Amino acid sequence: MTGSVTLLLVLDLLGTFAFALNGALTAVRAANLDIVGIVTLGMVTALGGGILRDIMLGDLPPATFSDWRYLAVAAAGGLVVFLLARQLTRILPVILVLDAAGLSLFAVTGAGKALAFGLGPVQAVILGALTAVGGGTLRDVLTGRVPTVLRSELYAIPAILAATMTVIAGQSGSYGAAAAIGAAALCFTVRLLGVRFSLDAPRPPTGRGKYTAGRD
Amino acid sequence: MTGSVTLLLVLDLLGTFAFALNGALTAVRAANLDIVGIVTLGMVTALGGGILRDIMLGDLPPATFSDWRYLAVAAAGGLVVFLLARQLTRILPVILVLDAAGLSLFAVTGAGKALAFGLGPVQAVILGALTAVGGGTLRDVLTGRVPTVLRSELYAIPAILAATMTVIAGQSGSYGAAAAIGAAALCFTVRLLGVRFSLDAPRPPTGRGKYTAGRD
Amino acid sequence: MTGSVTLLLVLDLLGTFAFALNGALTAVRAANLDIVGIVTLGMVTALGGGILRDIMLGDLPPATFSDWRYLAVAAAGGLVVFLLARQLTRILPVILVLDAAGLSLFAVTGAGKALAFGLGPVQAVILGALTAVGGGTLRDVLTGRVPTVLRSELYAIPAILAATMTVIAGQSGSYGAAAAIGAAALCFTVRLLGVRFSLDAPRPPTGRGKYTAGRD
Repeated sequence: MTGSVTLLLVLDLLGTFAFALNGALTAVRAANLDIVGIVTLGMVTALGGGILRDIMLGDLPPATFSDWRYLAVAAAGGLVVFLLARQLTRILPVILVLDAAGLSLFAVTGAGKALAFGLGPVQAVILGALTAVGGGTLRDVLTGRVPTVLRSELYAIPAILAATMTVIAGQSGSYGAAAAIGAAALCFTVRLLGVRFSLDAPRPPTGRGKYTAGRD
Repeated sequence: MTGSVTLLLVLDLLGTFAFALNGALTAVRAANLDIVGIVTLGMVTALGGGILRDIMLGDLPPATFSDWRYLAVAAAGGLVVFLLARQLTRILPVILVLDAAGLSLFAVTGAGKALAFGLGPVQAVILGALTAVGGGTLRDVLTGRVPTVLRSELYAIPAILAATMTVIAGQSGSYGAAAAIGAAALCFTVRLLGVRFSLDAPRPPTGRGKYTAGRD
Repeated sequence: MTGSVTLLLVLDLLGTFAFALNGALTAVRAANLDIVGIVTLGMVTALGGGILRDIMLGDLPPATFSDWRYLAVAAAGGLVVFLLARQLTRILPVILVLDAAGLSLFAVTGAGKALAFGLGPVQAVILGALTAVGGGTLRDVLTGRVPTVLRSELYAIPAILAATMTVIAGQSGSYGAAAAIGAAALCFTVRLLGVRFSLDAPRPPTGRGKYTAGRD
């Protein structure tokens, strides 16, 4: 029990750090923000998914907000980016890899927390996916972009996969370090394959889709 | 009592389905999204208003999220659109009519739920309107558009009308099937008349307004 | 105790009115909205920060929503702008000054409420800042702009300063009218100096920053 809680915490803090770096780098690259904007966007990206999940669970104040460790890790990620922006922004893939890492870890921990709160399996999968994509969605809305989850190559699907694996493991009583890390690794791999080969989920048969690049 | 609860449920599920179709069609038309984006935007549009209402009421996890029927109906609406996108998108008015139906039904059920939770009449009207316009507003924010509620011909006003009728009926003890359907029908009619004749609520006397089409 | 509660209420209502005027003026200037859009955007700007704070605190329904005085003050601000739009919009600085006033008052009252709910000092500072910038952020997201808090000259920093002063006063037992007004005045002054002299918080050392105006 304690081991499982500790594992959840470590994975959650790793995901928080990855998303904080990602959000702060997005602030530097896309919006050219100052230090407050960078750290704020890093923290929103890092903590937003967990906060949205906890609001849905009615677990208020949100755990990721009450616990100083999440705040410290998220703020540290933003500050690291501020200090090393010149170096980090040259490494475009870093943003994508960090985002995939946060996505994978949060899908697992979010679904796990929803199960621990007694929600049904479908709800737990959805909350896992919400935890995974929530912070990045807030990041995109705040910087005026259509959220990645709505438009990108295989973004929600790997999160749903990992959350589903977590729920199956949880319901069969085999949830633990191996299941959690396996689910996160699957999500991470599928997401990066999606980015690498520009895989998309199927589009509707309208004769539009891939052939017309124009949106709206 | 049971009859009233059942009625609320049926109207709520109808509104959910209408908004799911609407949101998913918006995803196809405006943003050219893939299947995940379509179903996600359909579900957000369908469930968003009720979730925002339940967060405000502190009824967490949100009823429309805990209850599998809402999830199933919302997901079904998204899938229907994905499969029939080629046919449905040719029928532009369908989007507007579905949106008006969702708006009307949610204004009534949202105000009714707020009353049942003991909120005051003004708060119940506002929550009815929030339930009605909330999902569409999330849809518009996620696809990068100024929300309909802020700019469109008679959008919030019919919702406020229907919510007000519901509250009056509720406070006078005459809330039931007839009152609920009457209020929804009024909202639906006013909204469609507004669309048909491009009616706008009054603009401020600045000499700008209708004569300068430019926004921002 | 009662005096402190009354003070909190008065400052909170003043901030609410200032933000309602500001949000409604933004609706007139930036988005050319009708009366519903103007009043809605005024109310969202005025009540949004407090509602976000209360959701985070789990104080639901939100106090600023349950209490008719907040609703009345927020609606009145929107209506005043609707009636006097022609006169008010000529006075551009008015929008900025009102925004600074709302920012200052909400930073203090938000941090004070978080302390009263037993949150830690860092959380109270963050919730003070969230109360201060939340309504304006919703205003900007709904009108399709990158939020001021992410891009503007010294916007979040004065709010964090005032919230920090409030928390220090609260924890040292010297929180009262003088401390609250002092903290708000400091925030107000720093914010207006920032606007007047176009002060920015530091940007990262990327060689971009001020010299490349382009934001994308």
